[in-house]
Amino acid sequence: MSSLTHLTSHGEAVMVDVSDKAETERVAIAEARVVMRMETLELALSGNAEKGDVVATARIAGIMAAKKTHELIPLCHPLLLTKVGVDLEPDPSLPGFRVQALAKVKGQTGVEMEALTAVSVACLTLYDMLKAVDRFMRIEGIGLLEKQGGKSGSWKREKE
Amino acid sequence: MSSLTHLTSHGEAVMVDVSDKAETERVAIAEARVVMRMETLELALSGNAEKGDVVATARIAGIMAAKKTHELIPLCHPLLLTKVGVDLEPDPSLPGFRVQALAKVKGQTGVEMEALTAVSVACLTLYDMLKAVDRFMRIEGIGLLEKQGGKSGSWKREKE
Amino acid sequence: MSSLTHLTSHGEAVMVDVSDKAETERVAIAEARVVMRMETLELALSGNAEKGDVVATARIAGIMAAKKTHELIPLCHPLLLTKVGVDLEPDPSLPGFRVQALAKVKGQTGVEMEALTAVSVACLTLYDMLKAVDRFMRIEGIGLLEKQGGKSGSWKREKE
Amino acid sequence: MSSLTHLTSHGEAVMVDVSDKAETERVAIAEARVVMRMETLELALSGNAEKGDVVATARIAGIMAAKKTHELIPLCHPLLLTKVGVDLEPDPSLPGFRVQALAKVKGQTGVEMEALTAVSVACLTLYDMLKAVDRFMRIEGIGLLEKQGGKSGSWKREKE
Amino acid sequence: MSSLTHLTSHGEAVMVDVSDKAETERVAIAEARVVMRMETLELALSGNAEKGDVVATARIAGIMAAKKTHELIPLCHPLLLTKVGVDLEPDPSLPGFRVQALAKVKGQTGVEMEALTAVSVACLTLYDMLKAVDRFMRIEGIGLLEKQGGKSGSWKREKE
Amino acid sequence: MSSLTHLTSHGEAVMVDVSDKAETERVAIAEARVVMRMETLELALSGNAEKGDVVATARIAGIMAAKKTHELIPLCHPLLLTKVGVDLEPDPSLPGFRVQALAKVKGQTGVEMEALTAVSVACLTLYDMLKAVDRFMRIEGIGLLEKQGGKSGSWKREKE
Repeated sequence: MSSLTHLTSHGEAVMVDVSDKAETERVAIAEARVVMRMETLELALSGNAEKGDVVATARIAGIMAAKKTHELIPLCHPLLLTKVGVDLEPDPSLPGFRVQALAKVKGQTGVEMEALTAVSVACLTLYDMLKAVDRFMRIEGIGLLEKQGGKSGSWKREKE
Repeated sequence: MSSLTHLTSHGEAVMVDVSDKAETERVAIAEARVVMRMETLELALSGNAEKGDVVATARIAGIMAAKKTHELIPLCHPLLLTKVGVDLEPDPSLPGFRVQALAKVKGQTGVEMEALTAVSVACLTLYDMLKAVDRFMRIEGIGLLEKQGGKSGSWKREKE
Repeated sequence: MSSLTHLTSHGEAVMVDVSDKAETERVAIAEARVVMRMETLELALSGNAEKGDVVATARIAGIMAAKKTHELIPLCHPLLLTKVGVDLEPDPSLPGFRVQALAKVKGQTGVEMEALTAVSVACLTLYDMLKAVDRFMRIEGIGLLEKQGGKSGSWKREKE
Repeated sequence: MSSLTHLTSHGEAVMVDVSDKAETERVAIAEARVVMRMETLELALSGNAEKGDVVATARIAGIMAAKKTHELIPLCHPLLLTKVGVDLEPDPSLPGFRVQALAKVKGQTGVEMEALTAVSVACLTLYDMLKAVDRFMRIEGIGLLEKQGGKSGSWKREKE
Repeated sequence: MSSLTHLTSHGEAVMVDVSDKAETERVAIAEARVVMRMETLELALSGNAEKGDVVATARIAGIMAAKKTHELIPLCHPLLLTKVGVDLEPDPSLPGFRVQALAKVKGQTGVEMEALTAVSVACLTLYDMLKAVDRFMRIEGIGLLEKQGGKSGSWKREKE
Repeated sequence: MSSLTHLTSHGEAVMVDVSDKAETERVAIAEARVVMRMETLELALSGNAEKGDVVATARIAGIMAAKKTHELIPLCHPLLLTKVGVDLEPDPSLPGFRVQALAKVKGQTGVEMEALTAVSVACLTLYDMLKAVDRFMRIEGIGLLEKQGGKSGSWKREKE
């Protein structure tokens, strides 16, 4: 039998049956970073200092994208998210932005994909707003940082 | 005045006026990679060898996501994409998958974000289908590889 | 701390955590009116008398929009609406239409925004179908009429 | 009073109140077939033998469409689907494909429309991918095969 | 090379390049029928006679679905539809409804899928509104009736 | 024949044929206001002064909603918007906010509905973010302020 739960034993894609899984409170935190030239970061921050719209736009885009996860990822279940938050911090040591997203649900399936989709779209939005001045930006390190709830309990990525 | 074209001079977000830009044929190619454990890649490939559904699902998800770009990225213009293709290649040296997406349009604005959204969602879909066996996957190096058309002409990222 | 529940204490937008709120039956009724010239109303009603499609189209649009509320309003939670109804009544004293919408859910968060979105889109649809003959229409008085359920219990706007 | 539950006694469309219905596990299976020329089927299968993408694309499209049912069918309630699967089998006796879809939910309303929407869109996707070589294809026999759960209990269409 | 235009020569799905196709006016007409018990049809018509909402709801659903075709069918191009109309006629000889949809565009790719999606969703909506009284309904004969424009010119299905 | 262009002469809804209309540059500006208690406005502004997120969130929501107009309003044509901007100004004389939106397109049909949808959803978003402290808010005066382009040329509402 397949260990990949989204495929049947014959390899066909399926939205797997979660009806027997326990309904527990589940939380996931994902992270990513957008790496750019120092001048690009400074420009973003000078704009940010005035009005906050680069960061605010990326935050809203990330939150809204979390709600679209099941429309984007073919085998994800629809979920009643109870909380979504997105954080963006400038980090001159990259230089660029560090982005984190938290998603929470009381349900039968985890919210990793919702948190990962939120950080991805927040990063793409930053990219979109800054691409006129920098074609060399990269989105790096999209991954899961922490999860709680579900059969496998709590898990946290150790510092590398 | 702001160099960030998606903000007014006062810093407010705006979907910028492209009505005076020339309608030219525009192409963009974006790339990314999903890095995983060797066992995860092997499992994906054993499934893939049989039925192709992990890769096929990610490819379809990427193509469909390109068409949703303007719904996800707040300040992107709607576009009549004339072509979208997504390529996924296993690479044991990562180990993982290398993903590329091409988007094409005849229009007044570029298609970088469409290509970048396609690779991002294709990678997230791979992640989703493999996450049951590997929590340490990372999506890395989402960026623009090449673009053609528009005022700035052709551009290609040099090998690093 | 902020009294605006959709902002953190630092003012950033967040889809607030409702996971500790009680799951109760919640109902909201919203209202609005479209004000137009008397000839416009008469034309709409003459069409309506025959086939009902102006009003029927606006009603369907309102019901469908209620289901899209969380896609439109960035910080709204997705909800499993258990009922949506939209009522449109011609009122020669405006002249125009009075519109009401009712939304119902068993959940952890209220349905005001769903009812308000339903009346707004029903009104916009009336506007769209009649705009060829009247550019001076106005949508007025979109507001909450009544709500039940949730921590704050029942509430009804008093007649003004 | 109207026997059509989606209309009020006056005939207006409404998303009916399901808040008093029991939350039970509900399953529905729908079926359909795409009838084509024998050469078209052979071409699809020769492609399928190599890469599987015609069938894989239609399967993914069907699964994703099930999640969009409430956006497409005006009076359908949003649902938290717990499983969706789509099966496509070539049948030279048609000649063409037989398609089945299963949808499952724990909820207050049935999932017939979700299963029917999944088979319909899977068939439309097959049609789209094969239409360049055959304009005479027909989608036939979209109907409910079986349902379980809800007030009316289990039901299965008898062989005709 | 593959004769299936939505697959590459290696069989992978792709949204094919239409950028070199001529921009012409294109029209497509699709048809389908919903077959039901005579009592079901009579009930629908008695409701229809009063208020028109069964038929009006299905018509609106079909028109709106045409605009969603590229979101539903993975390899369809987005299009700027210039006209969509849906017709529903009761036919006691089925008994049931005959449904036709017309889609029109000035563009580089045909509108068959838009017309086919419109009739399919109009039929599904009729089904949804009548399913409480009839589980044996079937949607039959979804197919293309006529197309104009594009390289292959005009085509009309002959009466069978 | 019907003067309502979205209905046939028999009164059925249709997405009207615009294929013979000239492709011209079209602009529309719509306006609305959200009326609230003075304390509510002050609270919004105190938050705004710090971070701008109430206003920024409503602006983004309005811009994104303009792109969804044809999904919300059943008979609206899809459009390639070339610009969308949303302005929100606090006005203590209401007290509340004045909202304006501009939409622009080069196309065969006007953009009034896009501008009206943008202001409506921007207002609904303000409402959503402030409703915890004020249930008596009203959205008033949604209407067209100005339009350019198309057969009827330029038009501007006179001050009342």
